[in-house]
Amino acid sequence: MVGTGPGPIEFLCPRARDAIENAQTVAGYQTYLDLISELLRPEQDIIGSGMMQEVDRCKRALGLALDGKTVALVCGGDPGIYAMAGLVFQLARLQDMAVDIEVIPGIPALSACAALLGAPLMHDFAVISLSDLLTPWKLIEKRLKLAAQADLVIVIYNPASKKRRLHIQKAAELILETRSPATPVGIVTSAYRQDQSVHLISLDDLAKGAIPVNMQSTVIIGNSRTFSWNGRMITPRGYEDKYGL
Amino acid sequence: MVGTGPGPIEFLCPRARDAIENAQTVAGYQTYLDLISELLRPEQDIIGSGMMQEVDRCKRALGLALDGKTVALVCGGDPGIYAMAGLVFQLARLQDMAVDIEVIPGIPALSACAALLGAPLMHDFAVISLSDLLTPWKLIEKRLKLAAQADLVIVIYNPASKKRRLHIQKAAELILETRSPATPVGIVTSAYRQDQSVHLISLDDLAKGAIPVNMQSTVIIGNSRTFSWNGRMITPRGYEDKYGL
Repeated sequence: MVGTGPGPIEFLCPRARDAIENAQTVAGYQTYLDLISELLRPEQDIIGSGMMQEVDRCKRALGLALDGKTVALVCGGDPGIYAMAGLVFQLARLQDMAVDIEVIPGIPALSACAALLGAPLMHDFAVISLSDLLTPWKLIEKRLKLAAQADLVIVIYNPASKKRRLHIQKAAELILETRSPATPVGIVTSAYRQDQSVHLISLDDLAKGAIPVNMQSTVIIGNSRTFSWNGRMITPRGYEDKYGL
Repeated sequence: MVGTGPGPIEFLCPRARDAIENAQTVAGYQTYLDLISELLRPEQDIIGSGMMQEVDRCKRALGLALDGKTVALVCGGDPGIYAMAGLVFQLARLQDMAVDIEVIPGIPALSACAALLGAPLMHDFAVISLSDLLTPWKLIEKRLKLAAQADLVIVIYNPASKKRRLHIQKAAELILETRSPATPVGIVTSAYRQDQSVHLISLDDLAKGAIPVNMQSTVIIGNSRTFSWNGRMITPRGYEDKYGL
């Protein structure tokens, strides 16, 4: 399981690169394979697949590993955050497979997006996916409400898909119950890729759908102390209370 | 602001490496500078400093940048998560400094520790620091309780220091109010460094202080569905409910 980070090779750590270069088979969602195409060699077997084919992809990778092949199963971001690492372990466990599985971490979307926004994750935060394909919407709502009550910065993964257009506005409305309309919100789409966009808006504007989001977007909602300055979004850690600055 | 990830150079991405190699001055906590010492060149100014000197370190780095120097301010993990990125922006803002600040993300401790444990972060999670140096303990308690009620996986940063030995046990007790004593808990200390240790225990044992933690430890507490298998900690995403496996 290899994490490729936000996408460009300059964010791929050497350990991940070695794993990809030394694998006999490289498998992954085609979009991520395209981003690292310069690393792939003609003698490697390459298995590209589409969205929503995660179960098949992981089963094929495990089957090859059982046959003695070294397989790099590539994920964008970090394979350990809403990605395929869990599914691989679950499948291996179901058949009690004797396969060595190593997870090589990558820079997750939450880190890439925070870096482009400034410093929104300097204090406690929650990471919540709005995808209700595998999780009931009621549970997602409960988590959003409690995270807002806890005054956690909230990082939203999967804010929208073609079928889910209004979930992000519903989420913003729930958070508005306990957080100021002026709360800074950062929206990053396609971080560090060619079509990157970075927006800094208010929670109120998020609820109104002011900036479109899609499957490549991550949304970060500030806590009660987050402020914006010079186009950056900053959550203070508390040094100013303790030491003055 | 440059993130060096868990420490060894094999986890440092090329963009971070370039920033360090091309800087005129490299500043950081001495422990992190030691981990990347092979990258440092004799003609660079190196400013190593101790713990708790964050404010001074950031002020010096900003002062040099104002004088036109290119400065790499190095942080372990990700500079954007409980690290110095926020402080740098706050200081720059106070004096309205005309300095270009770029944050280069790194692999955060939460990703490194999750990778070593298996796949504990496959579903929604909260990240909470137990350090009450800059945050009132009452607020930390409130966040732990609400995160537990939300059934979020909970990642605990700064679980202990020399002065704070029992906070992690108190945190475990709070979480036990709403979560099973058998909940899997992963404890990783010094991830990917020479003295690395990885333990998988129960929430009940965490409350009893079964495994010592220190400033280099990260603790991950599973949600109600997290299980352990073959020494790994796995939080299911929900594929098994939707598709069967």
